[in-house]
Amino acid sequence: MIPVNPDRFLQDLHSLRAIGASGVGKGVVRPAYSAADIEARDWLAQRMIDAGLTPQFDPMGSLFGLVEGPSLLMGSHSDTQPEGGWLDGALGVIAALEVARAAKESGGPPVSVVSFQDEEGRFGVTTGSAAWSGVLPAEKIGALTDPKGITLPEARAAMGDRLGGWVDPKRFTGFLEMHIEQGPLLDQTGGKIGVVEAIVGIRDRVIRFEGQQNHAGTTPMALRRDAFQALGRFNTLINERFRNVVTPATVWTIGHVSLHPNAHSVVPGKVAFSMQWRDGEAERLRRMEEIIRESAEEVAQAMGMTLAFGPMLGVEPVAMDRAMRSALAEAAEAEVPEQWRQMPSGALHDASNMARLMPAAMLFVPSIGGISHDFAEDTAEADLVSGLNVLARAVARMPASTG
Amino acid sequence: MIPVNPDRFLQDLHSLRAIGASGVGKGVVRPAYSAADIEARDWLAQRMIDAGLTPQFDPMGSLFGLVEGPSLLMGSHSDTQPEGGWLDGALGVIAALEVARAAKESGGPPVSVVSFQDEEGRFGVTTGSAAWSGVLPAEKIGALTDPKGITLPEARAAMGDRLGGWVDPKRFTGFLEMHIEQGPLLDQTGGKIGVVEAIVGIRDRVIRFEGQQNHAGTTPMALRRDAFQALGRFNTLINERFRNVVTPATVWTIGHVSLHPNAHSVVPGKVAFSMQWRDGEAERLRRMEEIIRESAEEVAQAMGMTLAFGPMLGVEPVAMDRAMRSALAEAAEAEVPEQWRQMPSGALHDASNMARLMPAAMLFVPSIGGISHDFAEDTAEADLVSGLNVLARAVARMPASTG
Repeated sequence: MIPVNPDRFLQDLHSLRAIGASGVGKGVVRPAYSAADIEARDWLAQRMIDAGLTPQFDPMGSLFGLVEGPSLLMGSHSDTQPEGGWLDGALGVIAALEVARAAKESGGPPVSVVSFQDEEGRFGVTTGSAAWSGVLPAEKIGALTDPKGITLPEARAAMGDRLGGWVDPKRFTGFLEMHIEQGPLLDQTGGKIGVVEAIVGIRDRVIRFEGQQNHAGTTPMALRRDAFQALGRFNTLINERFRNVVTPATVWTIGHVSLHPNAHSVVPGKVAFSMQWRDGEAERLRRMEEIIRESAEEVAQAMGMTLAFGPMLGVEPVAMDRAMRSALAEAAEAEVPEQWRQMPSGALHDASNMARLMPAAMLFVPSIGGISHDFAEDTAEADLVSGLNVLARAVARMPASTG
Repeated sequence: MIPVNPDRFLQDLHSLRAIGASGVGKGVVRPAYSAADIEARDWLAQRMIDAGLTPQFDPMGSLFGLVEGPSLLMGSHSDTQPEGGWLDGALGVIAALEVARAAKESGGPPVSVVSFQDEEGRFGVTTGSAAWSGVLPAEKIGALTDPKGITLPEARAAMGDRLGGWVDPKRFTGFLEMHIEQGPLLDQTGGKIGVVEAIVGIRDRVIRFEGQQNHAGTTPMALRRDAFQALGRFNTLINERFRNVVTPATVWTIGHVSLHPNAHSVVPGKVAFSMQWRDGEAERLRRMEEIIRESAEEVAQAMGMTLAFGPMLGVEPVAMDRAMRSALAEAAEAEVPEQWRQMPSGALHDASNMARLMPAAMLFVPSIGGISHDFAEDTAEADLVSGLNVLARAVARMPASTG
């Protein structure tokens, strides 16, 4: 086990949260390329220097702290949501810093550190790591805009001459990311550690039913073609039919509903709604897609609706590296016996992109109440330290091929 | 039968639609107190004078065309929706004008005419007739505003010194209104005339479920409290349970849905939706209310939701006068044998308010495709004339007590 220093780790975490502190609980406001985000990266670069690592910003503004020669890369991101928590991303970066620093001090395995830029997606989804991995093609970067219409190059200009060249991914033997779970599973089941099996794939598409807008007083029920009722029947059908296909880890959500004209006294003629589903296995995602399509077509036919599907957003599931997972599982069992579990990650992470470049793995610690992307986000400090210790144990056990 | 003149009637209808013509089909834009609305009322006042009636505007801007002594009052309204059809309201006014004019010419029964102001509800619901009948208390009128924040007195000022005193309702022996159906029933069943049995009562309230907003990727299905799913289950339940209570004329509608935060990747924590139901019998409305309340409470309990009901909008059902209905039914059978039906009015009309002041009845003619409140609203001219003829027959048959 690498001799990490929990106090120093927690002190660094609290120092980082002071940069862009929201003043509400432990909340932080540090969106990508904001003054607070850049200040945090400058602070982190100094910490890297202090630890004997060489800081380097890549063309996106992702900050690497490099050791010489081949190394394991550890980290996450230090940008936050517009109203973010203190741990989302920051935890993985500071844990990586502590492991790399302690490894360097103790003559342990070589570990480099990264804080990716814009994981929270001001300009897309996991923008910095997506650009580095090639998931986001270089020629598309210039055209990305945030919700206010500011382009990525305009925002990035605030980083000035910090920006350098791309870091060669071949120098890394693997990528390891610790993160808060951002869900309620560990918290509600008393788990201390989650070893991620796979980052789930996502399917997301808008579905539209169009019937007939009518007066809600003068149109008999038998003559209606009510788009909300079509949505209701569709929802009932898929909930029934998914039962034969899903696992307890599969999720699906109708999170957005737009009725037209959306008035008390008008039978709604149109509805557009989002249908999103996530699972760790591509085949299960495909079977669910089939049920969705068949159910929507059945409802449209039975209720006299026209049916349209929006474009499919597809993010493929990413399995975590088997050897790295084993090292994490053994370390978790040593640190918190029987209080850990294998689980999927329902959210995307920088590790999704890293898996294209190198073996990658992830570790979760509990989120109190499952809350994240909120000033109220928190994790017990004892759980943060357990996570750090599991990393310190696992890195010492990582197979030679991955660091 | 009063010897009405169908050509003169149709010509007046087309003249009226030229005032505020939308330029799209036969559509009309003549909202209450607009320049076009006032121009139409001035045109109508001149037509009344030509017919030997005495025009009088009341304090709301409703225009009466009076004969001396006791009379039957006939009419509807000449204001329109912001994007209105040419017949909604205008038909009943011009038919009344033709019947009153023909009665006067032929020494028939005394008939007065009215065009109520703001039936379409720029400032409320059937505002002009509600004010005259006392349903809308006088002290509330000054505070009414339209969706842009203009007060009723500000808008009404455009009518200048046209406005006069209240007309004494005691001078009228009854109220008779012809209107387009604004629904598909006559059109789809080949009916030519609908004799209205009752104007339905309306119950309308907003229902809110609040569960827990969560990340749509990281929150397992078993741990969700999804407000949209609560709405879906509620909708399924009431649709099943209403079956034992409703008639083919009963209607219910979820027309407005507001999800929060309404995003693809967030399990919705809150939903507010409108629940509206209409029927001709107060007891049935009450039983439906019970089912709604019980079903919502059941869903809230089963799914861990908090439940809140908004204030109940209640409009009571209004039965049409039995003797006047009989006269209309006999006239319909004489004019279009077996091509007429008794039916409820699913929409509110000025007749709802008139029933508080005097015996009241209504007659429907078909709406092509059931379309109204739309530039595309229309009715075959032959059906308009059938309606006029039924009125002309019925007025001649009206029992002495009602004209």
